[in-house]
Order: sequence, then C-alpha cells, then structure tokens
Amino acid sequence: MQLGMIGLGRMGANIVRRIVRDGHTAVGYERHQTNIDDLAAELGDKFSGTTDLAKFVASLDAPRVVWVMIPAGATGAVIDQLADLLEPGDIIIDGGNSRYHEDIARAKTLQPKGIHYLDIGTSGGVWGLERGYCLMIGGEAAQVAHIDPLLKSIAPGVDAAPRTPGRTGEPAQSEQGYLHCGPAGAGHFVKMVHNGIEYGAMAAYAEGMNILHKANVGNQQDEEHSAEVTPLENPEFYRYDIDIPEVTEVWRRGSVVASWLLDLTAEALYADPNLDSFGGRVSDSGEGRWTLDAAIDEGVPAPVLSAALFQRFSSRGESLYADKALSAMRKAFGGHHELPQR
Amino acid sequence: MQLGMIGLGRMGANIVRRIVRDGHTAVGYERHQTNIDDLAAELGDKFSGTTDLAKFVASLDAPRVVWVMIPAGATGAVIDQLADLLEPGDIIIDGGNSRYHEDIARAKTLQPKGIHYLDIGTSGGVWGLERGYCLMIGGEAAQVAHIDPLLKSIAPGVDAAPRTPGRTGEPAQSEQGYLHCGPAGAGHFVKMVHNGIEYGAMAAYAEGMNILHKANVGNQQDEEHSAEVTPLENPEFYRYDIDIPEVTEVWRRGSVVASWLLDLTAEALYADPNLDSFGGRVSDSGEGRWTLDAAIDEGVPAPVLSAALFQRFSSRGESLYADKALSAMRKAFGGHHELPQR
Amino acid sequence: MQLGMIGLGRMGANIVRRIVRDGHTAVGYERHQTNIDDLAAELGDKFSGTTDLAKFVASLDAPRVVWVMIPAGATGAVIDQLADLLEPGDIIIDGGNSRYHEDIARAKTLQPKGIHYLDIGTSGGVWGLERGYCLMIGGEAAQVAHIDPLLKSIAPGVDAAPRTPGRTGEPAQSEQGYLHCGPAGAGHFVKMVHNGIEYGAMAAYAEGMNILHKANVGNQQDEEHSAEVTPLENPEFYRYDIDIPEVTEVWRRGSVVASWLLDLTAEALYADPNLDSFGGRVSDSGEGRWTLDAAIDEGVPAPVLSAALFQRFSSRGESLYADKALSAMRKAFGGHHELPQR
Amino acid sequence: MQLGMIGLGRMGANIVRRIVRDGHTAVGYERHQTNIDDLAAELGDKFSGTTDLAKFVASLDAPRVVWVMIPAGATGAVIDQLADLLEPGDIIIDGGNSRYHEDIARAKTLQPKGIHYLDIGTSGGVWGLERGYCLMIGGEAAQVAHIDPLLKSIAPGVDAAPRTPGRTGEPAQSEQGYLHCGPAGAGHFVKMVHNGIEYGAMAAYAEGMNILHKANVGNQQDEEHSAEVTPLENPEFYRYDIDIPEVTEVWRRGSVVASWLLDLTAEALYADPNLDSFGGRVSDSGEGRWTLDAAIDEGVPAPVLSAALFQRFSSRGESLYADKALSAMRKAFGGHHELPQR
Repeated sequence: MQLGMIGLGRMGANIVRRIVRDGHTAVGYERHQTNIDDLAAELGDKFSGTTDLAKFVASLDAPRVVWVMIPAGATGAVIDQLADLLEPGDIIIDGGNSRYHEDIARAKTLQPKGIHYLDIGTSGGVWGLERGYCLMIGGEAAQVAHIDPLLKSIAPGVDAAPRTPGRTGEPAQSEQGYLHCGPAGAGHFVKMVHNGIEYGAMAAYAEGMNILHKANVGNQQDEEHSAEVTPLENPEFYRYDIDIPEVTEVWRRGSVVASWLLDLTAEALYADPNLDSFGGRVSDSGEGRWTLDAAIDEGVPAPVLSAALFQRFSSRGESLYADKALSAMRKAFGGHHELPQR
Repeated sequence: MQLGMIGLGRMGANIVRRIVRDGHTAVGYERHQTNIDDLAAELGDKFSGTTDLAKFVASLDAPRVVWVMIPAGATGAVIDQLADLLEPGDIIIDGGNSRYHEDIARAKTLQPKGIHYLDIGTSGGVWGLERGYCLMIGGEAAQVAHIDPLLKSIAPGVDAAPRTPGRTGEPAQSEQGYLHCGPAGAGHFVKMVHNGIEYGAMAAYAEGMNILHKANVGNQQDEEHSAEVTPLENPEFYRYDIDIPEVTEVWRRGSVVASWLLDLTAEALYADPNLDSFGGRVSDSGEGRWTLDAAIDEGVPAPVLSAALFQRFSSRGESLYADKALSAMRKAFGGHHELPQR
Repeated sequence: MQLGMIGLGRMGANIVRRIVRDGHTAVGYERHQTNIDDLAAELGDKFSGTTDLAKFVASLDAPRVVWVMIPAGATGAVIDQLADLLEPGDIIIDGGNSRYHEDIARAKTLQPKGIHYLDIGTSGGVWGLERGYCLMIGGEAAQVAHIDPLLKSIAPGVDAAPRTPGRTGEPAQSEQGYLHCGPAGAGHFVKMVHNGIEYGAMAAYAEGMNILHKANVGNQQDEEHSAEVTPLENPEFYRYDIDIPEVTEVWRRGSVVASWLLDLTAEALYADPNLDSFGGRVSDSGEGRWTLDAAIDEGVPAPVLSAALFQRFSSRGESLYADKALSAMRKAFGGHHELPQR
Repeated sequence: MQLGMIGLGRMGANIVRRIVRDGHTAVGYERHQTNIDDLAAELGDKFSGTTDLAKFVASLDAPRVVWVMIPAGATGAVIDQLADLLEPGDIIIDGGNSRYHEDIARAKTLQPKGIHYLDIGTSGGVWGLERGYCLMIGGEAAQVAHIDPLLKSIAPGVDAAPRTPGRTGEPAQSEQGYLHCGPAGAGHFVKMVHNGIEYGAMAAYAEGMNILHKANVGNQQDEEHSAEVTPLENPEFYRYDIDIPEVTEVWRRGSVVASWLLDLTAEALYADPNLDSFGGRVSDSGEGRWTLDAAIDEGVPAPVLSAALFQRFSSRGESLYADKALSAMRKAFGGHHELPQR
C-alpha cells in the first residue's frame, strides 16, 4: 500500500521506515531536500520525495492517503492547502498533537469536498521505530479499514506484549497496538487523556524519588533548617542514604510499579545518578492542560492529574507571586518577614 | 486575680498588659532583666518580675497560676523545672505552640504531683494587645473555671464581633473569645486545626491573586513563552492589567471573601504594591504539618490543606529533585532536554 | 439618577431598593406583573415597571442605563433584543454571572451601534440589601464615571469596613466597595477569581471542621475500622469530642481565620449543630471551573482552588468510576475484592 | 541453604515454593496444621513444618534464618517470642508490611542479644510465585550477604526484564530484583515509598479512565444536569462513547503509559467491562499514609501522592461532613439549600 507523508522529521521518517520495512511504499513531502535525499538513500526505490506539495499530491495514487506529521501549530495551514489539491475520496490523517477540538472542525470543513479526515494520536516518541507506535484513531470506520495494512505496520503488533489473559482467538485491533476510538477527534481525545495519565504517573515516580532523596534529612537537621522549618520530632527516622538509581533498577523486576517509564528512569539515573544535567524547569506540551480542561467540563475530579500539571507550572517559577503574597500575609499577622534573595 | 508569666516577649508582655489593664496583677519571669524593667516602668505596681525561677514561684500566691509563653522548643524544659518548684493545686498553662501530643504526656506526668495543666492555643499574633487573643483551652473544667477572670481579660470579649443571629441571653464562653475545648491537648488540637485552615485560606487568596497577576499573559505571549509552553489558544482573553491592591481593597466590603486576612493583605499590598520586599520562600511553623498528620491518622481527606502546605515546601525549592526527575523522564521518552540554569 | 433594571428577582429588586433609598429612581422590566406591583407598592413613585420591553426602553431617559440582572443563560438573548431597541450612547450593564469571554464578544458586537457595555460582577448574595454589593466593573472609563452616583448607592460604602491603615484623604473607589477593573470582561474576570477564592476558602474551613469532627476516632477504632483501614498507631491522640459550633464561634473573635464566611458558618452550625439538614452533594456554579480554566491557560498553579472544585465534583459521586477502577487494580495485584453496596 | 518461615499464607508459602524449586530447604511454622500438611504434600522432603514455635526453632540449623511473613499487627508479638528462643548469630527477617519505625526499634532491642534483624519489603502480591518478589532490604551488610542464595531464589532474577542500557558485566544485586537499601528500616522505607508511588500511579490511570468514561456527557446534558451544574459551553466536544477496555488494551503496546499495572487493568476490564463487580469504596493499607507522613516530616511536596490517598478516603464517604459544611455555607450566603438524600 502507498502512504504520502508530510514532514520527514524523526516521527515522520520513522513511520515511513516501518511501513517500507513491511513492503509498503511511501512518498514524502518536506521543505528540506537533504532530509528527502537522506531517506531516499536509505530506503531505495520504495521511497521518493519532493519539496513541492502539488507534485507530492500528483505522485500519489487515488484514493490518496496523506499523513501529516508536523508540529501542531503548522498543521492547520498545510491541511488547508491539501484540501485544495486533493480529490473526493482522498484521506487526510493528522498524526500530530492537535487538540481534538480542531479535528471536529476540520472533519466538518472537509466533508463537503468529499475528503475524509482521520485524527491519529501517535504515542511512541523517540522509541517508535523500534517499539512501534501506539495509534489512537478518530474518524469514519470505512477509512480506518482502508488504511488497515498501514496501521498494522506502524503499530507495535500483538507480540509487543504478552496477551491479556482471557483474550483468545484472532487478536483484536487493540492487541495489535492501534484502535479506532470513535468519530472525528476521538483519536486525539484518547491520546490527550493518555498524556494526562502520563503526567500523573511521572509525578508519582518523581515525588516518591524525592522522598527517598530527602531520607537523610535527620542528619542535616542541625545546620540547614534553622529558621525556615520546624525541627524534626524524630530525626532518627531520617538517616538513610538511599541509592536511588539502584532503587529504580530493583523496582523494574517483580514490583507493582514496574513500567516502561520506570525502565527509562532507571536508565537515565544510571547515566546521571544525581540528575545534574537537568535544570528542574519542566515544560508542558498542552495535552496535560487539555485533559484537565476536559475533566472540568465533564465535572470529573482529577486531583492527581491537576497536581501533576501545577507542579510543572511551579517548577518554572510561576508560583512566585503567590508565594510572595503568602509571605506578605505572614508578616502582616505574625511579624515574620521573608526577605528577597532566593 | 494574679498571673505568673514566664516569658516577656511580645506575646507574654501583651497578655500581661491586657490583664493589668483590667485590674489584675502579674509577676514575670524572664532571662533578660531589661525586659522586666521596661514592663515594670510601663505598668507600675501591678507588675513585678525576676530572673530567678525559684523567686518567681515564691512570689506567687497559691494556688499559683503560671502561664508559660516561650518558644515551643524550650517549653518542655521549663515545665520540668516548674514541676519541681510548684505545689499540689498549682496550675501550669502552656500558651505556646506545642504539639498537642506533648500536652497529653505532660498532663499525665504532672498529675501524680497534684499539679494541674492547661494547654491554651493562643491566636492573635502581633495584633493581640489591641484585638484580644482567641483562646482555645484543653484541660480540666475546674481549672478553666478557676482562671476565668484572667481568660475574660485576655480574650477579645463579646463586642469584638456582632453577635451571631439566634444567640440570645448571657453570652457563651465562645462568644467572649475563649473556649474550653476538652481534656488535655484539646486546646492545642483546635489551635492546630485553626492554623491548618489558615494555611488553606491564605493559599486560596494567594492563588487567586496569582491568576489576576497573570491576567495579561495574552500580551506577553510572543516574546516569553517560546519553547517551554504551549501557545495560548485565545490570547485576547488575557489582556488585563489588574490593579491587585485595589482589588483586595474592594473585596473588603460586601464580598463573600471579606476577612481579617484580606484586610491585612490589602494593607500589605497598599504599602508594597508589587510585593517587592518579599522573596517568595515561605516558612511553615509545624502546625500545618501536624494538621495534615491528624487528617491522615483520622482518614479524613484534606486536599486543600495539603496543597497549601506542599506549595510552601515547593516555594523553598524542595521540589527541585522531583522536577529534575521529570525532566530526565521527558528526555528519555521524548528527546527534550531541559538543561540546568534556572 | 435613573436606572432601568431588567429582572426583579431578589438581586435586581434589592439593587433597586438601594438606589431608591438614596433618592434615585428606577424603571423595571419583568415578565411577572406581580413582582412589579409588589415593588411599586413598596417603593412608591420612585419606581415603575412594565412587562413590555419596548415600553421599558421608551420610559427611560437617554442616555439610558439598563442593568440586566437575570440568570446567565438568559442574558445573551435579552441583550440582543435590547441592542435593537436602544440608541447610540445608551449603556447596557450585565450584572449577572456571565463568563467574561461573553463580555468581550458583546462589547465588540455593540460597539458599531454606539451602545456601551459594562460588565459588573456583583457579590453580596442574599445579604446585599443590608450589606451593599461589592461591584467589580469592566468597560470604558467614561461610562463607569457616568453611572458613578448609582454605583455609590449600590456598593457598601466606605464605612462598611475600617479604613486600611495607610490610606488617607478622599476614599478611593475601591474603598467605597466598587472598582473599575479594566476593559470589557475585567469585571467578570475579577468576580470569577473572587468566586474561585471563595471555593478555596470554603474548602479550607470545611476540611478543618472535618478534622475536628473525626477527632474522636480513637474511641471508635475497635468497632468500625476492621477491614478497610489500618489501625491507629496512637488512638489516645484521637479521643476528643469537639463542639464544632462553639469552635466556629470562638474563632470569630481574635483569631487569624475570622471572616464573614466564618460568621455565616457559625450561624449555620448554631441553628443545625450536626448539619443534618444537608445532604452533602455540593453544586458548583461555573465560576470555580472558569477560574481554573484561566489558571491553566495562564500557566499558573492553582492546587488549592482545583482541590476545592474537585472535592465538589466528588461530593456528587463523580469519582465513582475512578474508585471502581482503583478497586479493580487492587484486586488484580493484591487479591482484595472491594464489593458493591455502598 | 535452609530457611525458617513463620506464616504459611499465600506469601509465605509461595516464598517457600520458590526456594525449594531452587534446591533449598524450608521449615515452616503455622497455627493451622492443614496448611503445613498441604505444603508438605506438595513439596516433599525439602519441607517440614510444625505448629510449635520451640520445635520450629529447634529444627533449624544455626545460625538460624527465620523469615516472619504474617500480618503486620501480629509481627511484633511473634518477634518477641522468637527473641527468647533464638541464639546469638541468628537472623530474624520481617518480610511483612511493618512500618519502618518499628524496624529501627526492633533492631535496637535485638542487638544486645546478638540476634540480627533484617526488614525486607516484599512486593509481588498474588503474582510473586510466578514473577518473583521484588525485595527491598534493610539491615547489616553481613547478614544480607549471608542469605544471598535465598534472596536470589526469591527475587525475579535478571531475566525478568531487559537489561538497562549502559549496564554491562556481572549484573548488580538490583538487577536480580533485590537490593540492600541501608540499615534497619531502610527496606521497609523503600517499600513504603514504592507503595506511595503505586497509589499515585493507580490514581493517574483511574482519573484518566474516568475522563474517558464521561466523554459522552455532551449527549446527556439535557436530562441529568439541570440544577447541580453549569451547562456545558460546548456539548459537541463531549459526544464520544469510548470503549475503555479496548483503550487500556491498546495502551499496553508502544504507549508511554505501558506498565504492569496497566496490564492488570486491561485484564480486569476485559473480564468486567463496566466494573460492575466493584463498589467503589477503596481501602488503604497504611503505607500510603506513612509515605505522606515521611514527605511531611522531610518537608518534601507530595501533591500527587496525597491527592491519591485522599481520594481513597473520600471514596469511603469520609468527606461527607466537610461537604455538608460547604452546603451550609452556600445556603448561608447564597440561599441555595442542598438537601439530604444522596
């Protein structure tokens, strides 16, 4: 089967690699000719590319399957251009991190032109080439069925994990690592919630590691904690020097918190045991925020996911004004003055 | 009535001032003779003091009433010394910020000697002389009754607030501004929860003010927020320059969030509109922690109080290791490297 | 000065009462003739009303000042109708609980017609007649100035609270209890944050009260807590029967947590000491959600405000599915089966 | 090597099975003779057992290695009895879920008798026989080294997970699935934090699943949500019927949130797609609480872990009083009365 790929960055190129490996062919569109040349050199005649969008469209067989894999901010404009070049029956896929609201709008805009739209939330990050991509798909069932051979190649496949006990017979779509989640937007909705969970799980590990990190606070009591904090009631309970890289390693086997995130954490800590190469300002990519927006709209409590998101905001200094306000109140009623100079 | 006061710092001296104003007399014990001399000069023959604990005890009429008003860390040792000097029937009051666990232990230790013990959580901070002190009392009813004349003088009195609708007749103890809350420890327990609430309410104001503070983020979008955060979907919703000192002032009248804390906040912001004199590292005095310990022991959810406490910890940089761990994970699965240098 | 009031419910009628008291006149529009008649009977010739919107507009002197005080859901339609009836120079005020996004849109829509728009967040609830209304205003400065005499009558006035130390001379607008906060939407934005703070402060009290409520859990340990929870390490720390109505009363005088909310809480507990007349399902009116949306958009941490909102969601059973999922996981790895039947 | 096992419940028996499989021998102590007989029938001459503690001790070769694997509440008494029966050089292991405070005390008590004490946090639940147990060990290095052959048999072993990139040569202890974490208590401390993380990660999944569960709230808007909640601004964003069992399945392959917990969740949902067999009252076993106590003592923020714990408390109805208090306040200032009858 043939796939048109817009954007040959790491994700786009790796998806092309996975399908070409399985015998499919791909046409690429990219602004940078060198990216095209490199990939063509690697993949041979199964792949060709162009920096001209019209030529790209022209070189695809109808019904065309065009996967857009570029930064979310640029996706809208490219889809608008594509809409003018494509024909009824063609399929546009947004594999990026668009907000699902936009999917709903785009599907509606493209429908009168007969162009189909799929939103495919794509998880896998820098590991997708090797592990395969977990694909969460929104759109019409017929189009999802049409591109099934491609999805099978891009997704991890059933062997990527032991089969869930109770499941028998022909593996379900989900067991292959891809899933048609519902109509337009459903794919990015599920991907969004996936990322929300990711924020929460990451924070759970990080907080636990921090508690291990300070497990020796009973030894430091005297020097450090003079004015700012109350003295420990039982310093003898906090005299441990825990080797956190080793702890994350041991948890990988047999524990309840074993996970792929933990595997990565153990690897990162093995390479940089004190995390000295990191600054502690943690970005957020939007999906944690959107997950929380959804929780609020739905009236569903999400205390863990919100705590995880807000902790990232705080890590970037965004609570400073609030903290100053607290200090001002403390001074006002208690006479304590917490001065500048962090 | 006569009161013995141990510790003539701001709180101790002001309590002495309030009772002397009402015609009672006081004997003070202090390590610094100048503090004694100053207060004696101010209060005349209703007050005398000494730097010798035995003389202090000797100069009190039995049954002695000794109020200990010194830092929580020093209270235990002084009470031990007192226990050797006092006689059966005497009363020791801990008016400081001891943990209520200690009250339970002390009352038990003093009981065989016939010495009574009261724990009096004392709220009012630097404003107590003027406003009166809110007193939360634990111990035996007979001793609370015995010192009632002193409590009346120290507490704010019924006129300090409009009477609660529905309450008629002789004002209750609570309407005078003091309350016998239960047996040993009950006073500090209620004071502890009071402080827990204080943390939560302070944080509620501080967070709201921070949201006002950033209400102009739609104007700053372009320069600042390049890599770290997702762009605003609707920057036109965030183009307000809110005058926060004026907002806190307007809320003082007629709003639902009017409070004494808000009065103090408005005053602080009027004096320092941008809070430039504060550094943003917020201390905690122990009672917020103990409140949370109690919630955990009781199995009672306290998400707001815990968020308030943890935000203080974060303000002091205590989430740094956790934040670095998050960055390490983000790099591991997504390839983003959040470097040092805050 | 003359005010046109649309909606003579409790809030609208009370605002009319306050301005008429001060010598202003009012014309009312309402669907129910009886509401009009009742108010006319009470207020005499300073007030007249009609059930016909066109007549209402016709009976106002230009430039007309029309205050819309109806449920947020109905406001948009009425403003659309008004826009067709009013003339350039007239002023529409939305005094309800609209989301500030709508104010921005409405002001933009009305501008070409020369009709001015003010959004006035109005706090005071059922107490506004007596206490005055705290007014947070968005819109153009000239129109705010134009209606200043009305604002002065509706707001609590400077005597409603002691003057903030440091403030001298002619009282500022904010000290009267009203404030021009910025352009269109700024009034409802500040009111929204006010309500967000209200949620947080309410939750702080409620959580603290809950900790007092369970302070006797050490006495109940044996019967109740068999399977579900770990036994208390120190049951002797939790043997207090705290009289919560009295505690809220004592905190009203001299404590740091004294507030209007606390006054109301003490009153409610005096009338219903065990809160038996309440079911525990807590509604939310939208503004807590919008405050959180704003925090998320701004990238500002709001852990306390979000915890307060989510607790309300949970109180309505909205965490049930999540809780079942936790039980399912616990059974899967630990063999514990937490069965139905709450 | 020989192991004495006290308690032949599921965990104790499975540990015995694992070591016997590897050629070691075991002596068991149990109150129920049938448990002993069953295990003896299964394991043959590598295992024998008794209901008499003195005989149990007598039948072990010095230096004895006694693993206590019984409920935390009963552990202390058994160790006291053992202390009288054992000899200098013997080793007591607490493999249960004791609080690490107790380990510190026990090690100190046993030391004068020359008896060694190891605390071994043991993760693996009902899956340990098959997966192996993740062992987190506190105590003296010499004793940990002494029992190394047993630890190797009980732990999962290096093949239980792919080797962490960067690690080469002879696998570290942690890579075998067990780790000497530090002196007495360190094992249970690390196990405690492990469970704290478990609570947080579980809650992250559960919250995300709840957001998926309510993704169709836009379809239900009209009937259900009349009075209690604000209407959805954009109901068209919430019209998805997400198949949550399939979503958890698809996430198992290639996604960032893949984990063992997710494997179990997918299995549970496949068997009971609507989780109808669960009631939603979630227990907690103590370790989540202790983790939070440690965070508070250390001054480390743990907003996610606390939110996870408090949600469990709420699931058991423990926020009811707080919720009623919120309703009482809402009625007091706003006139809304949220009545009983959940």
